[in-house]
Amino acid sequence: MKIVRILYQDKIFWGDLENDIVKIIKGNPFGEINYQGSVALDEIKLLAPVEKNKIVLAGLNYLDHAKELGMDIPDEPIIFLKPNSSILNPDEKIIYPSGVKRLDYEAELALVIKKKGRDIEIADINDFILGYTCLNDVTARDLQSKDIQWTRAKSFDTFCPVGPWIETEIDPDVLEIKCYLNGELKQSSKTTNFIFSIAELVSFISKIMTLYPGDIISTGTPSGVGQMNIGDTVEVEIEGVGRLKNYVGDR
Amino acid sequence: MKIVRILYQDKIFWGDLENDIVKIIKGNPFGEINYQGSVALDEIKLLAPVEKNKIVLAGLNYLDHAKELGMDIPDEPIIFLKPNSSILNPDEKIIYPSGVKRLDYEAELALVIKKKGRDIEIADINDFILGYTCLNDVTARDLQSKDIQWTRAKSFDTFCPVGPWIETEIDPDVLEIKCYLNGELKQSSKTTNFIFSIAELVSFISKIMTLYPGDIISTGTPSGVGQMNIGDTVEVEIEGVGRLKNYVGDR
Repeated sequence: MKIVRILYQDKIFWGDLENDIVKIIKGNPFGEINYQGSVALDEIKLLAPVEKNKIVLAGLNYLDHAKELGMDIPDEPIIFLKPNSSILNPDEKIIYPSGVKRLDYEAELALVIKKKGRDIEIADINDFILGYTCLNDVTARDLQSKDIQWTRAKSFDTFCPVGPWIETEIDPDVLEIKCYLNGELKQSSKTTNFIFSIAELVSFISKIMTLYPGDIISTGTPSGVGQMNIGDTVEVEIEGVGRLKNYVGDR
Repeated sequence: MKIVRILYQDKIFWGDLENDIVKIIKGNPFGEINYQGSVALDEIKLLAPVEKNKIVLAGLNYLDHAKELGMDIPDEPIIFLKPNSSILNPDEKIIYPSGVKRLDYEAELALVIKKKGRDIEIADINDFILGYTCLNDVTARDLQSKDIQWTRAKSFDTFCPVGPWIETEIDPDVLEIKCYLNGELKQSSKTTNFIFSIAELVSFISKIMTLYPGDIISTGTPSGVGQMNIGDTVEVEIEGVGRLKNYVGDR
């Protein structure tokens, strides 16, 4: 199932996208799903499939990216947060902040939490995951280096494009992940290169903080990160999930 | 005015506390305030005065703390985030996580945003602040050193006690701030020692991320940070605001 969050006639709904038709979900998709009518895809706008939830991201989590950076393989995940205010819808514009000298894309596979949990064991993880989506961990690389702490560099408004939907029926540990800049392939890897599996990451994070329905966990970016400029088009493509397209502009 | 968030007869309300009486606010305190009856303080439980908002914290922001650490005065604030899931009510228990070797208190003055804003100029800051409260930036010091990134160390459930209320009528830049551990004074400073003033901090953060009503910004901790153990009582006291008391326990 492809779960979408949509704007339709100025109202926000969750839906289920199939063959260019969105079946509108009553309430939210985190419990039992019931429908209340349907609408054609070309009558709606796709929104980032996330409400007022927390966004937890893993740092270095691909073997190829660790190798590229000449870094040791970490023994535990490194995590950080993006604020909800940084979320950007599909097909919308990443704002290049004035004063930032280098703005980078980072293609990532993200997962959406289905139900409240903490101290989740690895064997039980699938019960807590609703599905998977694409995320671009947009980063002001110069500020990341200056601050040491990554928060400012990764927290500007529009720095967290998510979407275009939540795919509920894939095996996340064997997917191709790609990033295109103006149509040119820039990142290309597979989630088989994960240092920590999805299950290990979610279990680790759940031992720190309670996870709630709708929370997002993003799983790190592979090798090939690089710079974007005003006027660029950036696309995160994940096999079996979809393609998240955004543009880079000024205010 | 002391704005409180309360649990009364299993429902959550915002209120206005005066002489041990809580006047119950209709809706929330971020716009025009209207009341709907009142209740005695001993009939309610005080909650952390924050809903599902973001929590942005400043790192090193007291001259005395910078001196204690032998660190240079930063030219810009360092910011980080705590997840909403870390919020703890007044008088509740900070859970000492298993595996953590050193758990520290950090007394801080926090402010609550009143209305949506971004790129706020320093001269306009007061229009965007509802008031001030106490915050304890509980930190697993060993994990902070290990990870370099501060997120895990500061994001465990219960690591963000806030309260006991929001004081709307004080001058935040001339206040005494204290932390007591089991009644013994451990931190004692004044906000005149701020490296970045409240106005500078809020303006800086608003140029990164849009601020929304209810968002919390915490202003850093002074010198004297130290360790807590299971069984301890920790109190953050800020002149003109109040005293936030919590306990340390295991699960």
